[in-house]
Amino acid sequence: MKSSSNSILLRIELDQTVTTFGEVASVVSRAGGDIVAIDVIRSDRQSTMRDITVNLGTQTEEAIAENIRQLPGVVLHHISDPTFLVHLGGKIEVQPKIPIKNRDDLSKVYTPGVAKVCMAIHENPQKAFTLTIKRNTVAVISDGTAVLGLGDIGPAAAMPVMEGKAMLFKQLAGVDAVPICLDTKDTEEIIRTIKHMAPAFGGINLEDISSPRCFEIETRLKQELDIPVFHDDQHGTAVVVLAGLINALRVTKKRMEDIRIVVLGIGAAGVSIIKMLLGAGAQNVVAVDRHGILTRGAAYDNPLWDWVAQHTNPDDLQGGLSDAVNGADVFVGVSGPNVLKLDDVRRMAADPIVFAMANPTPEIDPEIAEPYVRVMATGRSDFPNQINNVLCFPGIFRGALDCRASEINEEMKLAASRAIALTVSDDELNEQYIIPSIFNERVVQSIRDQVVLAAISSGVARRIPPEFKGSKPLERRLTHAMMF
Amino acid sequence: MKSSSNSILLRIELDQTVTTFGEVASVVSRAGGDIVAIDVIRSDRQSTMRDITVNLGTQTEEAIAENIRQLPGVVLHHISDPTFLVHLGGKIEVQPKIPIKNRDDLSKVYTPGVAKVCMAIHENPQKAFTLTIKRNTVAVISDGTAVLGLGDIGPAAAMPVMEGKAMLFKQLAGVDAVPICLDTKDTEEIIRTIKHMAPAFGGINLEDISSPRCFEIETRLKQELDIPVFHDDQHGTAVVVLAGLINALRVTKKRMEDIRIVVLGIGAAGVSIIKMLLGAGAQNVVAVDRHGILTRGAAYDNPLWDWVAQHTNPDDLQGGLSDAVNGADVFVGVSGPNVLKLDDVRRMAADPIVFAMANPTPEIDPEIAEPYVRVMATGRSDFPNQINNVLCFPGIFRGALDCRASEINEEMKLAASRAIALTVSDDELNEQYIIPSIFNERVVQSIRDQVVLAAISSGVARRIPPEFKGSKPLERRLTHAMMF
Repeated sequence: MKSSSNSILLRIELDQTVTTFGEVASVVSRAGGDIVAIDVIRSDRQSTMRDITVNLGTQTEEAIAENIRQLPGVVLHHISDPTFLVHLGGKIEVQPKIPIKNRDDLSKVYTPGVAKVCMAIHENPQKAFTLTIKRNTVAVISDGTAVLGLGDIGPAAAMPVMEGKAMLFKQLAGVDAVPICLDTKDTEEIIRTIKHMAPAFGGINLEDISSPRCFEIETRLKQELDIPVFHDDQHGTAVVVLAGLINALRVTKKRMEDIRIVVLGIGAAGVSIIKMLLGAGAQNVVAVDRHGILTRGAAYDNPLWDWVAQHTNPDDLQGGLSDAVNGADVFVGVSGPNVLKLDDVRRMAADPIVFAMANPTPEIDPEIAEPYVRVMATGRSDFPNQINNVLCFPGIFRGALDCRASEINEEMKLAASRAIALTVSDDELNEQYIIPSIFNERVVQSIRDQVVLAAISSGVARRIPPEFKGSKPLERRLTHAMMF
Repeated sequence: MKSSSNSILLRIELDQTVTTFGEVASVVSRAGGDIVAIDVIRSDRQSTMRDITVNLGTQTEEAIAENIRQLPGVVLHHISDPTFLVHLGGKIEVQPKIPIKNRDDLSKVYTPGVAKVCMAIHENPQKAFTLTIKRNTVAVISDGTAVLGLGDIGPAAAMPVMEGKAMLFKQLAGVDAVPICLDTKDTEEIIRTIKHMAPAFGGINLEDISSPRCFEIETRLKQELDIPVFHDDQHGTAVVVLAGLINALRVTKKRMEDIRIVVLGIGAAGVSIIKMLLGAGAQNVVAVDRHGILTRGAAYDNPLWDWVAQHTNPDDLQGGLSDAVNGADVFVGVSGPNVLKLDDVRRMAADPIVFAMANPTPEIDPEIAEPYVRVMATGRSDFPNQINNVLCFPGIFRGALDCRASEINEEMKLAASRAIALTVSDDELNEQYIIPSIFNERVVQSIRDQVVLAAISSGVARRIPPEFKGSKPLERRLTHAMMF
């Protein structure tokens, strides 16, 4: 599917006595552009002004513009980019829930009436959850050091991503999200800043913070705050990978306990994926980084790698990626472009499952791998089975907020993976469809319900939502959830 | 005007065969309550359920409830408070400006399209003002140490005030405001935290931070950040006091240059008021604190007091409040209850102007002072001439954001005072009406325009809004503004 993120908007004024719009259109086509929308701004007998949206092909914006300019009777007023246009002035706003119509309203929402609400919270701080935005509000916090695939572009440049995330939080799950980009890369400063600003928020979504600082920051904040702290790049990806793998195993009729899974790339996402796989019952995970297979005997600089080495590779495999993949059932890549060779894939076990999630270029070209794998997933929207963490974060925070969870633990993440997987019914499930669309209307509600149940059963819920009250239904639901 | 911040909502179920609603109403009245609204929840032949809103008089909620409970055939289901009801779940929300309808929309506002917007900001950080929320967004930040008159109630309990302020920012001036309450009282930590989180914001509104830390925090942030930092308790109050005084002088036909002004209470607001009075042309300001008149010779612990002592009291008055007020034209109190005696007021110059702004109890009871003063103002909404900083902050930030001001300086504050004052026309102006209502539709636009002009002429504007472009109109407007 062509994305309009690669389109341009041209405003042209045309003297129709000299050149027809048809001639403009054919010039655009010849230059490799595809006109997908036309808005007539004004028109009279002689001249017309139109905004035309053109999807760019292989040609550049300049080539199309130059061709148009060479037409007689045509003025190209300006070229703009629809992606930039939707960003003008930012993508979110802060709205009052009710209008202040008169002095009487004002005296309730502000002075003097607000004073008694303040004092009620002062006397019982838990009331912040009912009387302020804390109940429904998450901070989306980045330091701009690992933004998308762009790297360390700084806090100001990271804002459009955080704003986009805030849009998704609200639209998909009704969560109010406040984007905050921090002008420091110092681990201790980031931890202190987030702790200081935490009182207003019911949760913290860490985003696009580079490894290994992200581990320390998340671990410390989880210890020191009493609200959920969730580094989406690690756990959101892991939750969706596990969801996809659960369904790939449904397709291939294999069991988590029986398979060998190779995880390539032991960074932020890789470590979280491995922990979740082990939590979901995997017995044979093999971790591979650029130096080769992680093995129990070796010593690593990073204590997290020591942990990974001690909990994986039960058969003590040695060597590189090819050695790990030889005979494996599943390959999960969160590494770099084109590192998995077709020969490696051909030596995997029957019905191989390949998740090649490096962005924008996967570990192996899906079109090349396709004939040799049973189930293929990537991080890209232009192939089937996109592993997209937009599937996870709205629902998991919706659930955590609704039960006032003190943290998002492994049980809740596993519950989220299962909920995502089960959104795809047996009838729908096939090699090309193991993951629901982010626009699937059931997925957020389903994640939310299962996450709430997991929070209650694991003891981190500080509130039981009304629909989960009453012992019998709760027990039944829990049993159902746990049985899966 | 009675405020519903002191009202309760009672849900009663009434067996109409036993007791009539009239009997309930008279019982409420006899207990000192005033029924101001009734909502029938359900009703059948025998029974009815109603929500009745009762303004409380001198009686307590319990007295009214007890009297109702004693009626036969009446069940009092629950009592709630309308002020608490409007706070449930918080008062603001974060909304996307446009919906994400499909994958094509998603690819513009989020990955992959958002990447080129991020890179545009990375290459030119000034683009954050056009491509993110920075252009229209202010952080409202408190540490909860000086909330209203409640004192140090902590960050969680301060949130309802900050949320109320965010509502006012949006409704009155279209400014998006994000409330942040900090869980630290350490001056350096607060400064660092705010600096770290600044990239997302176009301005910082400091709020309810106790003196003297508020001075250091504001001063340092102004030096170290390139966006406006404005401690509203200091400057918002000062702007509105000066607006009121300008109009009180219009009423009394006195000139700022000729009068003696006594300022009582040299805290956060007092210092800012004195600076603004001097900036507006006052030649004879006398500062008084609890130890008496500030004089040039004396040494003070606080360097701000040294500054005040050196710039005030040109006649070298000595002694206490009575000595200062004797023969003075204006009294401005930002101190405590009932500290100004009627005898002092009677010894003021002709047409005395008294601004008694201690809250909730003014420096002198307005009803006692009224016969002896020409113009009286307070901080309260139940007397004429309320000095309310809600008049200032929406317009002054609207102006600062619209011209991307790097700071809010004295010129801009003076311009705001003059704009507020001029909103009251000669026809409207009288002793009882020197300050416009916060619901006055012209006041925000007028402040905004004058603040933008002052920012441009004082060299802190980084953008000229289109309507101020072109030399001729700008010059005319500037001349007009400067002439006033």
